[in-house]
Amino acid sequence: MLNIAIIGAGRIGHVHARTVAAHPQARLALVCDPFGDAAESLAAEYGARSCKEAEEVFNDPEIDAVIVGSPTPLHIPHLLAAAKAGKAVLCEKPIALDITDVEAAKDELDAITTPVMFGFNRRFDPSFAAVREAVAAGRIGELEQLTIISRDPAAPPVDYVKVSGGIFRDMTIHDFDTARFFLGDIVEVHAVGQNLDEAIKETGDFDAAVVTLRAASGAVATIVNNRHCASGYDQRLEASGRDGALFAENVRATTVRLSNAEVTDAQEPYLDFFLERYADAYRIELSAFIEAVEKGTPTPTTIADAVAALRIAEAATESARTGTVIRLG
Amino acid sequence: MLNIAIIGAGRIGHVHARTVAAHPQARLALVCDPFGDAAESLAAEYGARSCKEAEEVFNDPEIDAVIVGSPTPLHIPHLLAAAKAGKAVLCEKPIALDITDVEAAKDELDAITTPVMFGFNRRFDPSFAAVREAVAAGRIGELEQLTIISRDPAAPPVDYVKVSGGIFRDMTIHDFDTARFFLGDIVEVHAVGQNLDEAIKETGDFDAAVVTLRAASGAVATIVNNRHCASGYDQRLEASGRDGALFAENVRATTVRLSNAEVTDAQEPYLDFFLERYADAYRIELSAFIEAVEKGTPTPTTIADAVAALRIAEAATESARTGTVIRLG
Amino acid sequence: MLNIAIIGAGRIGHVHARTVAAHPQARLALVCDPFGDAAESLAAEYGARSCKEAEEVFNDPEIDAVIVGSPTPLHIPHLLAAAKAGKAVLCEKPIALDITDVEAAKDELDAITTPVMFGFNRRFDPSFAAVREAVAAGRIGELEQLTIISRDPAAPPVDYVKVSGGIFRDMTIHDFDTARFFLGDIVEVHAVGQNLDEAIKETGDFDAAVVTLRAASGAVATIVNNRHCASGYDQRLEASGRDGALFAENVRATTVRLSNAEVTDAQEPYLDFFLERYADAYRIELSAFIEAVEKGTPTPTTIADAVAALRIAEAATESARTGTVIRLG
Amino acid sequence: MLNIAIIGAGRIGHVHARTVAAHPQARLALVCDPFGDAAESLAAEYGARSCKEAEEVFNDPEIDAVIVGSPTPLHIPHLLAAAKAGKAVLCEKPIALDITDVEAAKDELDAITTPVMFGFNRRFDPSFAAVREAVAAGRIGELEQLTIISRDPAAPPVDYVKVSGGIFRDMTIHDFDTARFFLGDIVEVHAVGQNLDEAIKETGDFDAAVVTLRAASGAVATIVNNRHCASGYDQRLEASGRDGALFAENVRATTVRLSNAEVTDAQEPYLDFFLERYADAYRIELSAFIEAVEKGTPTPTTIADAVAALRIAEAATESARTGTVIRLG
Repeated sequence: MLNIAIIGAGRIGHVHARTVAAHPQARLALVCDPFGDAAESLAAEYGARSCKEAEEVFNDPEIDAVIVGSPTPLHIPHLLAAAKAGKAVLCEKPIALDITDVEAAKDELDAITTPVMFGFNRRFDPSFAAVREAVAAGRIGELEQLTIISRDPAAPPVDYVKVSGGIFRDMTIHDFDTARFFLGDIVEVHAVGQNLDEAIKETGDFDAAVVTLRAASGAVATIVNNRHCASGYDQRLEASGRDGALFAENVRATTVRLSNAEVTDAQEPYLDFFLERYADAYRIELSAFIEAVEKGTPTPTTIADAVAALRIAEAATESARTGTVIRLG
Repeated sequence: MLNIAIIGAGRIGHVHARTVAAHPQARLALVCDPFGDAAESLAAEYGARSCKEAEEVFNDPEIDAVIVGSPTPLHIPHLLAAAKAGKAVLCEKPIALDITDVEAAKDELDAITTPVMFGFNRRFDPSFAAVREAVAAGRIGELEQLTIISRDPAAPPVDYVKVSGGIFRDMTIHDFDTARFFLGDIVEVHAVGQNLDEAIKETGDFDAAVVTLRAASGAVATIVNNRHCASGYDQRLEASGRDGALFAENVRATTVRLSNAEVTDAQEPYLDFFLERYADAYRIELSAFIEAVEKGTPTPTTIADAVAALRIAEAATESARTGTVIRLG
Repeated sequence: MLNIAIIGAGRIGHVHARTVAAHPQARLALVCDPFGDAAESLAAEYGARSCKEAEEVFNDPEIDAVIVGSPTPLHIPHLLAAAKAGKAVLCEKPIALDITDVEAAKDELDAITTPVMFGFNRRFDPSFAAVREAVAAGRIGELEQLTIISRDPAAPPVDYVKVSGGIFRDMTIHDFDTARFFLGDIVEVHAVGQNLDEAIKETGDFDAAVVTLRAASGAVATIVNNRHCASGYDQRLEASGRDGALFAENVRATTVRLSNAEVTDAQEPYLDFFLERYADAYRIELSAFIEAVEKGTPTPTTIADAVAALRIAEAATESARTGTVIRLG
Repeated sequence: MLNIAIIGAGRIGHVHARTVAAHPQARLALVCDPFGDAAESLAAEYGARSCKEAEEVFNDPEIDAVIVGSPTPLHIPHLLAAAKAGKAVLCEKPIALDITDVEAAKDELDAITTPVMFGFNRRFDPSFAAVREAVAAGRIGELEQLTIISRDPAAPPVDYVKVSGGIFRDMTIHDFDTARFFLGDIVEVHAVGQNLDEAIKETGDFDAAVVTLRAASGAVATIVNNRHCASGYDQRLEASGRDGALFAENVRATTVRLSNAEVTDAQEPYLDFFLERYADAYRIELSAFIEAVEKGTPTPTTIADAVAALRIAEAATESARTGTVIRLG
């Protein structure tokens, strides 16, 4: 039984609290948040303790592991302090918006042996993971082309966009990790940014993009992103190989289809957003974290993954702004 | 090159005329219809001759084969006269509404060697035929349960219903033939008739039905019929066997799917009715007829099939009226 | 918070234990099973108490509600004793195999006000329930024909079949309830039994069947059952109405599709069996039970439903054996 | 009735001959091919005349229209000669491999009023055209992102690749036209070429590619190409707009689906190659050509379309070779 503390009682903190509470090998021991009664209120739901200062988490001898769900600028300070205190850490993405900060954190972490894992939840989605396993098992031969469609149901508030680090660091970062999950090292990046939303354009950010990544293997990944999608949270991928192809389709709440004089076999809108769409992924991610902690095996994602994804995001940002192709490594 | 005459210039006559005209080994030579300028007008479209009297067709030495598309009461007289005149015959369904008439015709035909084929078009539908072939090839092991969904887009005029012989002889007859095509001899029939349409109810006929057929093999076929269907012409079947199942789904004009805030992956309505849905089947049926005539091989459907399907229809009619299960020979 | 006891620590008992433990408003307080350490072992997993005598459950003042998952012959004694002790009861299906026993129990229960609910889990399946709601909301107009496909992945052991009460009481009972859920009162039953499995045939039972039910409304339900299905647990239904149709399709663990030189868009086998397929249904069923208990509202299923489904099962058994149509009520 | 001559009796000439012969308003009058008995043999199948010299076609007063299906280097000489002789022309793609030749031809054609149409067959595919019409009708709001997947079943012979002008001029040219069909003017091109096939690599050409096109409207098209695909001829597109999305899926010969212990709802491989996949498109293309000729209306594709597609192909070739983004006009 792992005693877990959560730092940050916001939306993602609630997701983790529920997931931890339902996990047979984990116990939600402590919730920490400096604002109002956020920590107290969330902790009360699950019979956990609460606090306002992160220091209390790091100093609490009962705590085995910390889930860092604080605002992005605090991710590195919190994860380093927790790791130095000997706690296992599961840190939400993006680890930070500046690659130099992340590289510095990586240097510090490389000297620490406690398990530190990063929340690239797509890797734990049952459908994406099943495609990855089937590729690894040789079901479609050598992987040649990966196509990722990733569209959010609706754009976030402009105030969020302004501090988000831009679409590539904030949204595409997941797809960059997925591309690396399937293809390994990326050596070349090209991005086209689109401005379909006037309010986001005014912030200097894009709200849609198409990114092409060439992997060291010669395979190519294509990512199509959009901050809004009328049909719901559009999350698909297809992996095309020498001997076949695998597709992970959108998820709906039910299997119901409707036929009438206008439509036939119509399905319902896709699950609305990441909390619903990736509910299983959060659960499986937590299991993978707990298993690594308890068995002392490597975590399935590491800070090296966070560094690599962020480097691609920086390259994409530059490519989209300058209209050039960026080479990595 | 087979010189073909068509008797009957109605809706089905037009289908056959177009199919014959487009067939590389057939020539539309003559169209016969006693009413107005129906024959002349249809013949003119394809550069064929026309006449008003069926006798002229039977006596025309140029004619190799006759397609009988006259009103149902004339099917037997026309097919017998054509066969006796040495013409090959392709006769539309239903051959007749009274089983004793059909059995008498069968006796006469059994003494004649000219090829006589019956228009059970479902057998020639590419999807149904592919399922049949896959079953025969053992792809799903021993066939155990066959489910046929067959719904028309809209009920025919009440005046047609009155002379149709009833839903089982007029509409389900195709599905009875399909059941025999897959399962062979049928030994037990149960039918439930439904009255969903008040106007049809007044004629004494049903406008929807569910029929259960037990085959000599022990397999069971279920037929779900309805004279109307909001989504179009609903024509599906599934064959379930020991080792798997095969499905023939509805056909649409395109592969287009639509997603928006109300529906996702919605397809367009099914092809409207039999002329569109079974256009390929009519073409392949004609090819099968021509091949049998030219090679002197047996036709893929015979009057024995017409007799067998009609016997099931009579049993279903009785079962639906009396609420009993009917056993066949 | 409802304190719940479970009687019966077998397969279904484990399902309910997990579901209760994960439910935010329920607490697994007590597990009862007379055999070996079954109760103790299951209780230990969830920190509950255990006992061997059902009497202890009924006399325990802490217990608010009892889930009856004991062997079928004990269902009625257990549910009556629990109800008389003032406990709310959720009883597994089938309530009993003999209609007279159930009717007697119904008479007793009619005089007791404590909530007693029956585990017809299909009603709580999200897809079936969504179809039901869409029908009730008029999305497809008046419901005309309901088609239920229900096939188990593999036949149960012959020893189970012998005491199961036969396929209609044991397996089809769920589909009879589904038919009533959609269509209300059933007035006419016809069943064809099939013997595809020699070992089950020797027990005098069928292992496959097609049942046709006519509702008082004039709608007809068709049920296609099979004790085995190569593709997994095949659980579908389609509701066809005047203005459209609704389909609930099979469920898979992921959305993955595979294309290669042999197949395209191939999906994985259906979820294996009822524990996986209806996991959500058991959870929602429990919520519905708890809500009825806590609010004092009627339970969504009652002993009247159990009586009605069992009467249909008896009629189907008789119809399949005699080859006649049975009228109810 | 339009009297049509076909120049070139190769594979595409056979397609057009069959399509012309089956068209109610067209007559195949003449087939021209200089090699062996190719013209004579093809003409004989349809009762047409044949010749070996293209001059005979241009000088034949009976000929109303010419379909140019000769080798690519002869397309411009043949289409110009035919147009100057007053014949309507339908010219196969690619019009030529060198943009300066095509621009010169365009200058000449601009001074001639006879209808000259180019064989961009995707525009006439019923599914692609239906998506285009739905977009134009506003079904998905403003079009934002177009994704085209286009994979051939198998690479052409290396000898063909050597003279093909490269993957972008030979294969992607269709997709460039499709992108223009949906998005209008393209202003920016980025291409990544892949070398998955060693034999093609030795010719200096790519055998797979991902191309990103930015339209003047701000919309972006992504094209994923591959010279081979294990599942057949993979031809899909999705158009994503502000209010929804439309998909054109792959086409199969039947609607059959197979379920067994390994796969469920598996469909058969995609139609093999362009002759089968675009059979309807060739037919509709011919109808559009005939209608334009007979009504004197503009042809749906013009040499301006050929010029525009070829310019994109040249830009893609340069982008893939240099790793830069190319801006157009």
